[in-house]
Amino acid sequence: MNSSLESRIHTAVARVREHWRGTRFLDGLEPGVEGTSALLDVARLYRAWRLDVGRLQLLKGRAMTGLFFDPSLRTHTSMEVAAGRLGMTFVYLQAGSSTWSMAFEDGLVMDGVAQEHVREAAPVLSTYSDVLAVRAFPKLKVEDVGAGPWNPERGRDETVIRAFSQHASAPLINLESALAHPCQGLADMLTLSDLGGGSFKGQKVCLTWAPHPKPLPQAVPLSVVRAAVLGGADLHVAAPEGFDLDEEEMARAASFCESTGARITTTRDPDAAASGALAVYAKGWGSGDPREHAARAAGLRRWTVDAARMQNATAFLHCLPVRRNVIVTDEVLDGPKSRVIPQAANREPVQAALLLTWLL
Amino acid sequence: MNSSLESRIHTAVARVREHWRGTRFLDGLEPGVEGTSALLDVARLYRAWRLDVGRLQLLKGRAMTGLFFDPSLRTHTSMEVAAGRLGMTFVYLQAGSSTWSMAFEDGLVMDGVAQEHVREAAPVLSTYSDVLAVRAFPKLKVEDVGAGPWNPERGRDETVIRAFSQHASAPLINLESALAHPCQGLADMLTLSDLGGGSFKGQKVCLTWAPHPKPLPQAVPLSVVRAAVLGGADLHVAAPEGFDLDEEEMARAASFCESTGARITTTRDPDAAASGALAVYAKGWGSGDPREHAARAAGLRRWTVDAARMQNATAFLHCLPVRRNVIVTDEVLDGPKSRVIPQAANREPVQAALLLTWLL
Amino acid sequence: MNSSLESRIHTAVARVREHWRGTRFLDGLEPGVEGTSALLDVARLYRAWRLDVGRLQLLKGRAMTGLFFDPSLRTHTSMEVAAGRLGMTFVYLQAGSSTWSMAFEDGLVMDGVAQEHVREAAPVLSTYSDVLAVRAFPKLKVEDVGAGPWNPERGRDETVIRAFSQHASAPLINLESALAHPCQGLADMLTLSDLGGGSFKGQKVCLTWAPHPKPLPQAVPLSVVRAAVLGGADLHVAAPEGFDLDEEEMARAASFCESTGARITTTRDPDAAASGALAVYAKGWGSGDPREHAARAAGLRRWTVDAARMQNATAFLHCLPVRRNVIVTDEVLDGPKSRVIPQAANREPVQAALLLTWLL
Repeated sequence: MNSSLESRIHTAVARVREHWRGTRFLDGLEPGVEGTSALLDVARLYRAWRLDVGRLQLLKGRAMTGLFFDPSLRTHTSMEVAAGRLGMTFVYLQAGSSTWSMAFEDGLVMDGVAQEHVREAAPVLSTYSDVLAVRAFPKLKVEDVGAGPWNPERGRDETVIRAFSQHASAPLINLESALAHPCQGLADMLTLSDLGGGSFKGQKVCLTWAPHPKPLPQAVPLSVVRAAVLGGADLHVAAPEGFDLDEEEMARAASFCESTGARITTTRDPDAAASGALAVYAKGWGSGDPREHAARAAGLRRWTVDAARMQNATAFLHCLPVRRNVIVTDEVLDGPKSRVIPQAANREPVQAALLLTWLL
Repeated sequence: MNSSLESRIHTAVARVREHWRGTRFLDGLEPGVEGTSALLDVARLYRAWRLDVGRLQLLKGRAMTGLFFDPSLRTHTSMEVAAGRLGMTFVYLQAGSSTWSMAFEDGLVMDGVAQEHVREAAPVLSTYSDVLAVRAFPKLKVEDVGAGPWNPERGRDETVIRAFSQHASAPLINLESALAHPCQGLADMLTLSDLGGGSFKGQKVCLTWAPHPKPLPQAVPLSVVRAAVLGGADLHVAAPEGFDLDEEEMARAASFCESTGARITTTRDPDAAASGALAVYAKGWGSGDPREHAARAAGLRRWTVDAARMQNATAFLHCLPVRRNVIVTDEVLDGPKSRVIPQAANREPVQAALLLTWLL
Repeated sequence: MNSSLESRIHTAVARVREHWRGTRFLDGLEPGVEGTSALLDVARLYRAWRLDVGRLQLLKGRAMTGLFFDPSLRTHTSMEVAAGRLGMTFVYLQAGSSTWSMAFEDGLVMDGVAQEHVREAAPVLSTYSDVLAVRAFPKLKVEDVGAGPWNPERGRDETVIRAFSQHASAPLINLESALAHPCQGLADMLTLSDLGGGSFKGQKVCLTWAPHPKPLPQAVPLSVVRAAVLGGADLHVAAPEGFDLDEEEMARAASFCESTGARITTTRDPDAAASGALAVYAKGWGSGDPREHAARAAGLRRWTVDAARMQNATAFLHCLPVRRNVIVTDEVLDGPKSRVIPQAANREPVQAALLLTWLL
């Protein structure tokens, strides 16, 4: 059976490669509609036969490095486990704490705090690693922003992942940046297709803003939009005034609608968006000046997802970690419609599928 | 020879499972007398053939996550090495530093500092991991306790490990909590049985309080008591006034005495307890209000284990790390009676035995 | 082919062992001239067949622990990847953060901050690990030194690595101490021999001091000197007044000159040292009292390596991380003479060669 399993995996991987020969997975649109669909098939195979696949050690002798500028529970664990089960070595680096502090600006005279430049770090890590993965959030905390006028580009700051993309010779996975969390997006496609019985094409999916004490980046909601569009969903995005998603990224995602049959509707009414949806995907995010987040979010507690809002929806999703009784009530999260645990579980197979695609 | 070794391991593991089908190793009493004895046999087999067992990669394709809320040298290293030699992937997570800060209270409105609830963290990590392991000490530092009256339940605070036990679907190992360090206890049984020539049944074992600048939790001494009782020892526990061990836990351990023939004697005289003992096991611990520890421990330097106290004893044991010339003199620790290094070495095989029992 | 590759590796390793049976790699001189040359052959074999060697999993079931008292990017990653590709388990410990704080002084009464003594830590880690590796820099920051007279021995402080060498029963690799970075030195020999077409015997090599805001230890430059001497180079060391390398270590290295035909020339003229060199190896380092570093280094910006200085040299080398436009200009570092990336890449194969030598 194992040689048969091995040949099934080879066949599935070959199908991904027919559609996608790239070595960057940065916003999740790279594999395209066909490539993404083929990647999900590899993920399904891994998921169905996880222990058997693990015993094959298909990627033994291979290595990857994960460089984390920010905390992680799911992303770190699922990535290291996916790599490890396939037989790979995974090196976890906590940037700034266990490594040197890093500079990204070109032409810098480095007589200050930064000890290492990405122009060396990225190619050096590429020599040791068959794959690199990097997580770096934008600095949007109120105390990071300081006084002075707000520069809207800060919310779109992808300096770190772009610099790694420019200077790394190894294949690169974005483990969450300012504007994208593509592994989450890929896992969400798998989850939505599970909920839809193999596909969610044409089905209503609701993405709803929800309250959160911090002005979080839009990486996850934008990745949900991309996932919904790639899968051909009827996507309804609900957000209160002042919390619209990044216009440029929304337009880029929408450009795929024609080929997949997806539709995007935006609304200020979370109940209408949720009603009849296959899944209500909640997420808190900021928009514009982070210093105005608290004031703008005041009085929006009715955006917390509760049982009433879920009444005519099938499943509740969230990328986790989730603020209980702020984003969503305990009643919903602990209730039968919540699918957040299998949703998180889907991170491992989709990431394994990426590794198999690049390294098998 | 390897297939013969493999079948010996399968047979030994089957014997554990005859007596114990549980998936929690929290205070170390779970496998019972017979199950514990069978676990030690698996550990002995692993220890005798460590490199050969390692080459078999019996658990390849499997993964475990170790979540550490507190520092570790032996526990982390021995757990990761045991898993790794068997072919497993081991993910090390440093709670709070590399991960999100975690909440444990039910019904919480999470608009404060805590970003993730154990109700998600435990099941999510269970999906990526075939085994979970958690280390979380109670907060007993004088500065943690603050002013106000002392609540005795703080010394017994097992919130973290209990929450993981409640919410994790994967098998769970306690890597030290307020009241138990069961892997240490299991290793101590192996060490004591080595010293006793295969068993320490009926032999005198001395557990003695020793000075330490901090009011440490009672996890280790209570696990020594449980180990001694499970192995049928004649246990003598010596502690000065004000440093008695937890009454409830002592009673629970004592309930095993009848079936194993163990006896527990408590005394205020460390010399009497040590005299003629197979092993003198020293440990510093606190009792009651941590703010009174320093005052209560003043003038108790004669409890430091020295050569005179060891005169009529066979071996000196300590779980490590040990405060030299506070807990025990250099003369004893560096002398021929000290067995603390092989004692620490025994951590790896007993933990490997647990993994084999659950995953082979 | 794989069994043939395996037997080639066995043969190459056997040749190392003919010349070197030691279990300490602390300053890099231990394997001697012949042993080092044989080690490089193992490294070349690993490098040429890295993925194939990885698939052989020659060291499966083995484990090593890397204990880091200081940050690392290349050293940690290359060491973990080398071990992992060979099938080993690698445990990364961040001293002081994820572990207990450690004491090194004999006879200490440990009632202060330090929780664990190296006399336990080293032998205990040796029981779990087939190889240990330790990184510990001397404390030379201006704020560490404090007021009072300067003790020159602080710059030579190898307390940590020496204590581990004394108390560890497992083979030990120094991953950088006050006076040596021997894995870097071994990788540098491989790089220099690549540049020289298989050997750099008799070829001019320039080691030049370069500006750096901090008074760094001399570990790397001294290891470059040892590497150059072991390989029989015509070494020219350029440093401004006040920045001479450690006399005692220079004399020890020079004692190898006779057997290898190496020569060491010291100069205050970086242009003369660089002219006609196979490689210009730049590095910032301190000398003497760190509190005088800034004043002594003022006005020495002409020591920054630029295109003019490189005009008659073949290659530029640096151990990394490198301060851009302080140590070396962007023009040189990003130009065709820079070989710093393949130089860093050579860390993995030489470290794999050490592991194979000790554990195959």
